[in-house]
Amino acid sequence: MKYCFGVDIGGTTVKLGLLGTEGDIIDKWEIISHTDNEGAAVLPDIADAIEKKLAEHHIEKENVIGIGVGVPAPVTEDGIVNGSVNLGWKYKKVRKELEALTGLKVKVGNDANVAALGEMWKGGGSGEKNMVMVTLGTGVGGGVIINGKVLTGAHGAGGEIGHICVNYSETETCGCGKRGCLEQYASATGIVRLAKQKLKSTDKQTLLKEEKVTAKDVFDAVKEGDEVAKEIAIAFGEYLGCGLANLAAVTDPSVIVLGGGVSKAGDVLLSFIEKPYKEHAFFANKEVRFVLATLGNDAGICGAAKLIIDEVC
Amino acid sequence: MKYCFGVDIGGTTVKLGLLGTEGDIIDKWEIISHTDNEGAAVLPDIADAIEKKLAEHHIEKENVIGIGVGVPAPVTEDGIVNGSVNLGWKYKKVRKELEALTGLKVKVGNDANVAALGEMWKGGGSGEKNMVMVTLGTGVGGGVIINGKVLTGAHGAGGEIGHICVNYSETETCGCGKRGCLEQYASATGIVRLAKQKLKSTDKQTLLKEEKVTAKDVFDAVKEGDEVAKEIAIAFGEYLGCGLANLAAVTDPSVIVLGGGVSKAGDVLLSFIEKPYKEHAFFANKEVRFVLATLGNDAGICGAAKLIIDEVC
Repeated sequence: MKYCFGVDIGGTTVKLGLLGTEGDIIDKWEIISHTDNEGAAVLPDIADAIEKKLAEHHIEKENVIGIGVGVPAPVTEDGIVNGSVNLGWKYKKVRKELEALTGLKVKVGNDANVAALGEMWKGGGSGEKNMVMVTLGTGVGGGVIINGKVLTGAHGAGGEIGHICVNYSETETCGCGKRGCLEQYASATGIVRLAKQKLKSTDKQTLLKEEKVTAKDVFDAVKEGDEVAKEIAIAFGEYLGCGLANLAAVTDPSVIVLGGGVSKAGDVLLSFIEKPYKEHAFFANKEVRFVLATLGNDAGICGAAKLIIDEVC
Repeated sequence: MKYCFGVDIGGTTVKLGLLGTEGDIIDKWEIISHTDNEGAAVLPDIADAIEKKLAEHHIEKENVIGIGVGVPAPVTEDGIVNGSVNLGWKYKKVRKELEALTGLKVKVGNDANVAALGEMWKGGGSGEKNMVMVTLGTGVGGGVIINGKVLTGAHGAGGEIGHICVNYSETETCGCGKRGCLEQYASATGIVRLAKQKLKSTDKQTLLKEEKVTAKDVFDAVKEGDEVAKEIAIAFGEYLGCGLANLAAVTDPSVIVLGGGVSKAGDVLLSFIEKPYKEHAFFANKEVRFVLATLGNDAGICGAAKLIIDEVC
């Protein structure tokens, strides 16, 4: 039997998985991300953790095909990161460094793209080769899979779905400095922004409280039949549907997978997105299937494993 | 020496090229597209033309690696077309049919995507692997190249750049049935539409005549220093810059190639697109290079040749 490691590096913890090359997770665990000193310890810590895990499972290195890695930053095809705020990294040859530390083959990708690959392989997009994954969390991230491969792009910045403009009349500024980005409406913080705007301007009765409303509150209230919450969800769905229709005109996916914290609202979410999507989609893209992500926190390690499997096998 | 054929099928003529596998055009010619009777003669006519050309140049079939074909319709990875209005085709297994007719290997792609591949190989995008080509003609078409490969998509409809929404307040309808499509502002007909709107609402002196203004007139007048024409070009550039910024956030190209009839205006065109593009682009995408297409009508046969070369070699 052949093995591989899937590594999902985050700003707080590194998630690691030991997998068989068919995608079965044999073991998974986490270590702390030591981001001080420009994150110098992150890769050596990963190398140590992998060595220990091999010893623990009595696995010889010759039976390990390699290590796939997801990083919270743009990553070039050669595995170079040109700065990661979350990890404290400046310019770093991640692939080369980790290969030198472990003696194993390494392939590196952007964490959102890698998670998309995981969902295509073993999650919501299973069986598909042309997929878009949108991660609705604090921000809006995403990954585009074309013919089974991650769309990396020239600067490793492919799939930055959150920064498509969906409102050319917006006056407030996005974290990226632009105005009208999808992230301003469809992230957890974006939904809170929409909710506060609505609660300021409505006299209708509602379960929502302006001071401490969350994205979860909004969709919980929708499930209770709250009219104001429904109006907020409609606005959210209109922006997201438009953004995804634009995305589909270019990438022509067969399935769109919704993940991230906001997607925990469940199927109710899809009902607000599918209708505006169909209204705004180019005719060839109307029949896209919408599904929820299914792997949760394992998407990263699964996708990272798939990354190295595709490279080596 | 090894040879291949590049075939660019249009609604009026079929352009054919005999190329060496390094991309040198040895011979090129055209035949009529017989689109009556559901376009039944199109593929047999191409097969005949190729047989005659081989005899003329005394080339043995065993020295031909295959035929690449561009078709004005969405095309799946397997070379299936599900209807082409321009050719009269319904469902057609283009690859299989042409392989049976010629005994040669065939690879088929969408004509706009294939032209993009040609410009990447031998034209404005030469030396690049991540490229977007926008064709500004009667409509707005385009092709996206990711890591050297055409983005085909699940339904063969990848790269439909003309149907990205760039104006959510538009009241007039695009040919596709949606509102605010890039095509409504950046195609030759879109520029005429913008020009007529402007000429109706301005009192300024101008060289342009509302009744018979063309896209060429607008850019000719810009070159003469005409203020009204400049305002029209600024509006055009703003819409196109926004659309391309959205496209770049997803596909992360290193170069954007502008082709089609409108691009014959030359470098003056770029000056109106680059500024709004930079203003609307995500920070990782600001350094994209804008260039004009250089292959003109040969982009199709070159790209088609590259399609079969990549498949076989």
